[in-house]
Amino acid sequence: MRKGRSSLEFERTPVIESAASVVGKKEGDGPFGSLFDQVEQDAMAGKPTWEEAESFMQKEACRIALEKGGLEKEEIRYLFAGDLLGQLIATSFGVKELEIPMFGLYGACSTIGEALSLGAMTVAAGYGERVLAVASSHFATAEKQFRFPLGYGNQRPYSATWTVTGSGAFVLSDRDKVRDTETGKGLAVITGITTGKIEDMGIRDSMNMGAAMAPAAYSVILRNLMDFEREETDYDRIITGDLGVVGRTVLLDFMKAGGRDLSEVHMDCGVEIYNRQEQDTHSGGSGCGCAAVTLAAFILEKIRTGEWKRVLFVPTGALLSTVSFNEGQTIPGIAHGVVIEHRKPERSIGWII
Amino acid sequence: MRKGRSSLEFERTPVIESAASVVGKKEGDGPFGSLFDQVEQDAMAGKPTWEEAESFMQKEACRIALEKGGLEKEEIRYLFAGDLLGQLIATSFGVKELEIPMFGLYGACSTIGEALSLGAMTVAAGYGERVLAVASSHFATAEKQFRFPLGYGNQRPYSATWTVTGSGAFVLSDRDKVRDTETGKGLAVITGITTGKIEDMGIRDSMNMGAAMAPAAYSVILRNLMDFEREETDYDRIITGDLGVVGRTVLLDFMKAGGRDLSEVHMDCGVEIYNRQEQDTHSGGSGCGCAAVTLAAFILEKIRTGEWKRVLFVPTGALLSTVSFNEGQTIPGIAHGVVIEHRKPERSIGWII
Repeated sequence: MRKGRSSLEFERTPVIESAASVVGKKEGDGPFGSLFDQVEQDAMAGKPTWEEAESFMQKEACRIALEKGGLEKEEIRYLFAGDLLGQLIATSFGVKELEIPMFGLYGACSTIGEALSLGAMTVAAGYGERVLAVASSHFATAEKQFRFPLGYGNQRPYSATWTVTGSGAFVLSDRDKVRDTETGKGLAVITGITTGKIEDMGIRDSMNMGAAMAPAAYSVILRNLMDFEREETDYDRIITGDLGVVGRTVLLDFMKAGGRDLSEVHMDCGVEIYNRQEQDTHSGGSGCGCAAVTLAAFILEKIRTGEWKRVLFVPTGALLSTVSFNEGQTIPGIAHGVVIEHRKPERSIGWII
Repeated sequence: MRKGRSSLEFERTPVIESAASVVGKKEGDGPFGSLFDQVEQDAMAGKPTWEEAESFMQKEACRIALEKGGLEKEEIRYLFAGDLLGQLIATSFGVKELEIPMFGLYGACSTIGEALSLGAMTVAAGYGERVLAVASSHFATAEKQFRFPLGYGNQRPYSATWTVTGSGAFVLSDRDKVRDTETGKGLAVITGITTGKIEDMGIRDSMNMGAAMAPAAYSVILRNLMDFEREETDYDRIITGDLGVVGRTVLLDFMKAGGRDLSEVHMDCGVEIYNRQEQDTHSGGSGCGCAAVTLAAFILEKIRTGEWKRVLFVPTGALLSTVSFNEGQTIPGIAHGVVIEHRKPERSIGWII
């Protein structure tokens, strides 16, 4: 079950039984707009504060994921959840009504990778038949927390990313519990994980988070390929969370220097989620929500239909804090790798997983 | 293995192989002073900022825990770590040199309970032979984050608690990996966990965190007794993290109303860690470090020697944030229960666990 130095391969592979994405207007206007389950019409989502709006999106994402799976909240054993804000307030106020035993997580923008990893470990070990993994971010709550008041209207360099407003939720289930669906498409299962450590290359530019995170992505991808003894082409896609255009370049350069050419298989959720030129999002999207909603709305479908047979999903996080930053500290990064694979439906003999 | 609605009982019980505590001067002057592994002589611990001092204490706690177990960092498969600060900066900068695959956790002051729970789940499932669980807090970093600048000298009501400066680290190990010790005392093993959900009774007083956390402690303790079909007297001690004098009263009243008398078996780390009158700490100690260092320095020894055969350890967290608080929100609480039991050394036939 343990694989190499930092990975696990699951014998009893957990299934991503259902997933949901709830996003803001800007994300709804982007390339994946029609794929999201719910698009809020403004950044407040009908709430008095941005933070409550973000909480609401987490709550909605969980609700829709349960609904799509035909599940009640009582069927969920554990909740793995987090967001970018200090003390995880978007999460605390978002999920409290679910009344599910909860593990609060912080992995910056890599949080959904951390939640899926721990969730998969929990289901594969038989600790729960079903768990819920959820993460969120919000442009306005993140700007307020990490950068400038929005009314100040600061200029953003081209290396800056735009925090995605949105939340993605995923129900991970024991394979014997997955209900047959009428779609006949296939299932997305988590076959393994590679857990990242903190990587710090000394980046101090808070407007270039891609560069801060690229070493963490590099380290997890390389470690995954070594632990599972795979080539980069053994994956249909290797998908990072929110490196953006600048961070992606750093990653591909690092990889090339290490003798690996990722250019054919690499995709970055942050690069894809907006029409960057028209939507003026510079280096791309970022935030916990970026990788989470892209997985829920876009990536999962490709895997379920079998267009992609095996994907390495690597949400990336920059461990930025205004306190440490103002004290002259660097911005360390972390990433969490999750191997998601297609499994065929075999109706006559049940699912082959 | 699943037990009741929110608990797990481990078939292969993980052992707390070694533990370490590093604290500040005030904690060193308290009742447990002589029991801590390392007492720093001032709040800066020789570092330029309080935050770096807290990081240093985490690093030291991990180093000493490894040293006491005769272990190298390469023998640790996963790290479960957290603190109170936004974006877990005490942790990020504290543990990065360990280079261990990491899961960052946020459970406010309940974090060490969350870390021990996930760590025990990981070891019991065979995902790693050894993991490290660590948490920290620091009076000055917490005051800066949550309350007033220290130089402002605000008055504190008697319901306020004093954030413990310190870090506790624990190596959890597979039972076959535990090296025989010369002490012959016995082992502390984790036999089960009860995971808390978010509890919100509408408390809005940030100077009365005990009251905010008591409902979460109540809920986890009651659930634990129900899930394991135990009476409160089946535990030698039921130990909460940092309710303090005020929160403890609330918990005991709640319990009494529910027909359970906890007064004989209950202990609160926050009540015990300081000489409250002389040290002017009002309701008691608090912070992630409070429960963590009390477990490492005081509780574990009682269990290892067999003076206490079975303990329910329940670190408690108040999910307070200045952002949500200033927006008029309540302070929800969460708690994580860990059942720690004594196992006898049986030298002739190896450890009976």
